[in-house]
Amino acid sequence: MITRLSELFVRTLREDPADAEVPSHRWLVRAGYIRRVAPGIYSWLPLGYKVLRNVERVIRQEMEAIGAQEVHLPALLPREPYEATGRWTEYGPNLFRLQDRRGGDYLLGPTHEEIFALLVKDLYSSYKDLPLSLYQIQTKYRDEARPRAGILRGREFVMKDSYSFDLDDAGLQKSYDLHRDAYVKIFNRLGFSYVIVSAMSGAMGGSRSEEFLAISETGEDTFVRSPGGYAANVEAVRTPAPDPRPLDGLPAAHVEDTPGTPTIETLVAVANERVPRSDRPWTAADTLKNVVVVLRHPDGTREPLVIGLPGDREVDLKRLGAQVEPAEVEPFTEDDFADHPSLVKGYIGPGVLGTESASGLRYLVDPRVSTGTAWVTGADEPGRHVFDLVAGRDFTPDGTIEAAEVRAGDPSPDGSGPLQLARGIEMGHIFQLGRKYAEALGLKVLDENGKLVTVTMGSYGIGVSRAVAAVAENTCDERGLVWPRELAPFDVQVLATGKGTEVLEFATELAGRLDEAGIAVLLDDRKASPGVKFADAEIMGMPTIVVVGRGLADGVVEVRDRRTGVRTDVPVADALGEVLTVVRGRPEFDRPDQL
Amino acid sequence: MITRLSELFVRTLREDPADAEVPSHRWLVRAGYIRRVAPGIYSWLPLGYKVLRNVERVIRQEMEAIGAQEVHLPALLPREPYEATGRWTEYGPNLFRLQDRRGGDYLLGPTHEEIFALLVKDLYSSYKDLPLSLYQIQTKYRDEARPRAGILRGREFVMKDSYSFDLDDAGLQKSYDLHRDAYVKIFNRLGFSYVIVSAMSGAMGGSRSEEFLAISETGEDTFVRSPGGYAANVEAVRTPAPDPRPLDGLPAAHVEDTPGTPTIETLVAVANERVPRSDRPWTAADTLKNVVVVLRHPDGTREPLVIGLPGDREVDLKRLGAQVEPAEVEPFTEDDFADHPSLVKGYIGPGVLGTESASGLRYLVDPRVSTGTAWVTGADEPGRHVFDLVAGRDFTPDGTIEAAEVRAGDPSPDGSGPLQLARGIEMGHIFQLGRKYAEALGLKVLDENGKLVTVTMGSYGIGVSRAVAAVAENTCDERGLVWPRELAPFDVQVLATGKGTEVLEFATELAGRLDEAGIAVLLDDRKASPGVKFADAEIMGMPTIVVVGRGLADGVVEVRDRRTGVRTDVPVADALGEVLTVVRGRPEFDRPDQL
Repeated sequence: MITRLSELFVRTLREDPADAEVPSHRWLVRAGYIRRVAPGIYSWLPLGYKVLRNVERVIRQEMEAIGAQEVHLPALLPREPYEATGRWTEYGPNLFRLQDRRGGDYLLGPTHEEIFALLVKDLYSSYKDLPLSLYQIQTKYRDEARPRAGILRGREFVMKDSYSFDLDDAGLQKSYDLHRDAYVKIFNRLGFSYVIVSAMSGAMGGSRSEEFLAISETGEDTFVRSPGGYAANVEAVRTPAPDPRPLDGLPAAHVEDTPGTPTIETLVAVANERVPRSDRPWTAADTLKNVVVVLRHPDGTREPLVIGLPGDREVDLKRLGAQVEPAEVEPFTEDDFADHPSLVKGYIGPGVLGTESASGLRYLVDPRVSTGTAWVTGADEPGRHVFDLVAGRDFTPDGTIEAAEVRAGDPSPDGSGPLQLARGIEMGHIFQLGRKYAEALGLKVLDENGKLVTVTMGSYGIGVSRAVAAVAENTCDERGLVWPRELAPFDVQVLATGKGTEVLEFATELAGRLDEAGIAVLLDDRKASPGVKFADAEIMGMPTIVVVGRGLADGVVEVRDRRTGVRTDVPVADALGEVLTVVRGRPEFDRPDQL
Repeated sequence: MITRLSELFVRTLREDPADAEVPSHRWLVRAGYIRRVAPGIYSWLPLGYKVLRNVERVIRQEMEAIGAQEVHLPALLPREPYEATGRWTEYGPNLFRLQDRRGGDYLLGPTHEEIFALLVKDLYSSYKDLPLSLYQIQTKYRDEARPRAGILRGREFVMKDSYSFDLDDAGLQKSYDLHRDAYVKIFNRLGFSYVIVSAMSGAMGGSRSEEFLAISETGEDTFVRSPGGYAANVEAVRTPAPDPRPLDGLPAAHVEDTPGTPTIETLVAVANERVPRSDRPWTAADTLKNVVVVLRHPDGTREPLVIGLPGDREVDLKRLGAQVEPAEVEPFTEDDFADHPSLVKGYIGPGVLGTESASGLRYLVDPRVSTGTAWVTGADEPGRHVFDLVAGRDFTPDGTIEAAEVRAGDPSPDGSGPLQLARGIEMGHIFQLGRKYAEALGLKVLDENGKLVTVTMGSYGIGVSRAVAAVAENTCDERGLVWPRELAPFDVQVLATGKGTEVLEFATELAGRLDEAGIAVLLDDRKASPGVKFADAEIMGMPTIVVVGRGLADGVVEVRDRRTGVRTDVPVADALGEVLTVVRGRPEFDRPDQL
């Protein structure tokens, strides 16, 4: 059946929506693919829903190919299993919670590790049942603090989540690798540029995890790459720590008056003036900055934390946040300072941290603050700093933390050269969860020797609705959307541009023939000017545009490639064959019946 | 790809689940199609999800055939639109309500009239845009007081909901008829017995509505049918009202002592003893029973209501409830009697209802209590009744109400004879909503004369997950599920029953050939006894079962029809051809690529 634009439920907009921050959001709304219902909550119009279903189809095919089986679990879930794993609390305000008419506690599922573990526990009991991979394509919920960019970061969104179940670590590695390979195939087919980076496991727990990031300037994630192939989400970057240096022969620490130096900048200036160094001037990198924050744990308790890092670097709150999850980072307030009188604002040094008066303060340092490094830092008195304070000799931190900003040009942990920074959109995330969930929920099977062993799990997600936005973001141009053929709502948009009945008749006939040949075709049969039709076709972004118009009198129609803009005049008699060749000739063309 | 039962995520159960009330629930759980997560909330396992997707496919095809366009709206919805139509309150405890992190009120959509109306308002503005029909297949939520029977009445369920938008009543009628025809096709294809009955519109509002009920003894709905073709949900039955009779010449009302007669039974006995009638004895049908209830309105207010009906009938609370929606019916308590001293328990008559002392009491009567009918009823004094009290002469009710029970044998409103009663499961409901929602939300378009007119809407639902249960309920037998071919997860289940490697080899080869021919095949390759495999195949319910086993030595395999039980021995050489004929020969075979 030909779809006629005069009947299709769509309206293009001439203006950008007021809240559009990124191109994909702008064009998906302007082209009539999605509409906002509430913050982070969107309706899919017919064109958008077709793209979403096409993405789902690609994912299903690749999931089936690795033997993952499709199931469908509820979105409305009881509290108990999430209580058992601690996530009812750990998710904090990101979880939508509600009560039913009897006062029972429920949540809207953000991800389903618990329910899958319980389901497998219900059905399976033996090592013979494993390995197993299950997946679902389902609507998920997260009460994001800042829903943004349309469907790029929504509060209701479609996700493909899979879970693998294995007897041992080798099995998990195999299931993980299968998923990783399937994801590579899926993202290749979806047709956007992406990078696979090491990632933090965060609230999910587990040992190893990687992210698939769509490379995009508008992405919320920053990642690094090295010339040697190291790639990591910036939150997961490991700072190369200098080897410990011998302590022998280092100058003794000495306290100096440095009046009016509560900032690194003022400290460096005063140090160079009052305590000049002979070989080279003091710089911010010689100073040790101590930053105090408060961790709010999921149970509501507040814990102060002191972070020591080179004075030329800021604390990166996203990196810090990822390290301390599920705790949230809050500022250390004036009241907190009042509660800890030993902390002298602007002059905090490691000297006081081990002392009685500051007991209970954890002190973690940047990996660069390694044994044998000497620093200029606060002397815990107003207007005084200590020089040549040596880590491992004069103070011993409680550990290290990756909380300092990462900069382009920083040395890569693989030693292959300077890091490059870029931005991306998280499209997929694969985790080796291990036994955390299985242990909490008692998912065990009998092994070959009849002994109960805890199952090891993997968890693998793809943002399905987000993928629609990411592809749009990756492929759109200044005139609108540009769909890869595998995802396009229609293969061909046929425009009837011109007044005579002949034009519409020929366009309709051509569309009908294409439809009979199995091509998804959208016919612009509206009573509108050619200009409106051209503009709408470019906004809507079908890969092939056929213009039936003025040329018809000369016996030609025009075939346009939306992406390249290349236009070809084709004799009327060859029009059908030419379009079929264009559509089918694409190597990626592989569209089964969409019903 | 062949699916192997040894790898399929499924376990059959030998015992009925403890909470199974109806056959479909029992078998869907025992066959490993669904699993309970919480009351009224279920997971779909691979076999169940395939059936659900097959139902969706049938519905999509028939919706597309009438030109309805698929969209997908959120399930998490803001309060405001539902506030505008009053349904935020009217839904009462059936609505799942929640707050987001900013304290904004949200609900989980039970049905989407409001959001569709707003969406069309957003996009459309002219009569030229209409008619329009949109649909979605989506997860819906209702906090049922009594979730029951597995997925038959769940709290999270899949629904197909469509909405039509027209300029005038004739257009609405046409859209309604198109949907009605599509529903007939859908339910015919799903392959169960159903009936179309007149229905109450209930909380939806609107003028006309019909239900599609799957005929089933375990259904929650009762419906009536007449020999002449009248059919209605029992809640919607219209009682034929006797024509008004002349009041002239009727005997005057007279009060009699009837001590100790607070019930109809005692009243009839005492009346026959103390006030005997010459021609025939008094019966319960001669008495007018007055029942007091309280309506609790959505705003929380309580309103007493007196219902007068022939003494031989009880008030049917479901019928009453449907009449007074969205109010809920509560008992008239002792405290209520204390507040209305003029109401004498057991002796309430119409005499007092119009008086000062009982002001504020609404009095509605059964349609049989028509003008000119004479009754024995309470005299509003203990131990006294009034005889020959004539409706329309001695008392005038505030109106009529359909609250009396309907009985098999009651005269049909179409005059064609006695009503039959039966039970059914509500599978579909179609409504002519009219302008209620469009008015509340300001959905107007410009007509041909440039005048703003309010759009008229229809609303059309199918319980998609419920359909899986209804089909199972309709087709299962004492050995398990029996799927119609169009919905079956697999066309054929091939059992390898026997020890030699030859059996499994041949079964695997046959399954492979069937798979290549496009037949969905499930191969039972497990190391299990033939008895276990036979029993599982019957529980799981694929339409065709092929047994490769003992007969192989004699050169035959067995082809079984799950529904009829007919078994045919087929020579090995003909096996593939025979199974293909069996599968494809079915006229309803029409399975597109399921991906």
